[in-house]
Amino acid sequence: MPAYDTNNPFAKILRGEFPCHKVYEDDHVMAFLDIMPRSPGHTLVIPKVPARNILDITPDDYAHVARAAHKIAAAAMKAFKADGITVQQFNEPAGGQVVFHLHMHVMPRHDGVALLPPASRKEDVKVLEDNATKLMAALG
Amino acid sequence: MPAYDTNNPFAKILRGEFPCHKVYEDDHVMAFLDIMPRSPGHTLVIPKVPARNILDITPDDYAHVARAAHKIAAAAMKAFKADGITVQQFNEPAGGQVVFHLHMHVMPRHDGVALLPPASRKEDVKVLEDNATKLMAALG
Repeated sequence: MPAYDTNNPFAKILRGEFPCHKVYEDDHVMAFLDIMPRSPGHTLVIPKVPARNILDITPDDYAHVARAAHKIAAAAMKAFKADGITVQQFNEPAGGQVVFHLHMHVMPRHDGVALLPPASRKEDVKVLEDNATKLMAALG
Repeated sequence: MPAYDTNNPFAKILRGEFPCHKVYEDDHVMAFLDIMPRSPGHTLVIPKVPARNILDITPDDYAHVARAAHKIAAAAMKAFKADGITVQQFNEPAGGQVVFHLHMHVMPRHDGVALLPPASRKEDVKVLEDNATKLMAALG
């Protein structure tokens, strides 16, 4: 497996070099909205440690990501009046990974509405801002 | 959200009333092969507590499931000479859930090989037995 690339986009977000629509942060993780959401409110949870994916992260840090995804899921149900949640986490290109800093997708779902294909449409900034506000309010 | 159904198939597996190809167990979780694998070695990790999905499980128990998925992922890379891992966890019918005891899918992937559609084919028992043996050997 290739080494962790410190210049991947999520590393830049963690260093504040790239902007993001942040919705949650604690000592171990940060969560922000996917700018190409597959569903409204599609959120990414990333560890603060440099980890390419599930194959080089520690069990503790993977558990921290999962705990944050659990928290986001409950809030997203309220914020987006969702009917369900799809969690995905891709590892290496064969596993579907495109950005090589570990991330867990938390996608609010509605009955009868399919996910958009990955990276199919860049969302309007105004919509992302509104969704971040809603999700943060539900996170309390 | 409907209440947890104590007669769902995974509850029966936990009680030993249904057989499974078990590959891992600890105080908190059990892992076994999906009998309709979307990729060879497709494994399900479930909590021992009765939880319908991410919306009614405790953060600690969700973290236990994630820790086991992390362990299975590393072992599956070796056991199946995989190129990557796809992790999925579906919640409520809108989120893709079909069996209503929380489960995290850990799917070994190979470059250029798509996942089979969900529940498309029941695997031969001999293949499942062989894959369980390989995965348990890699889990050590």
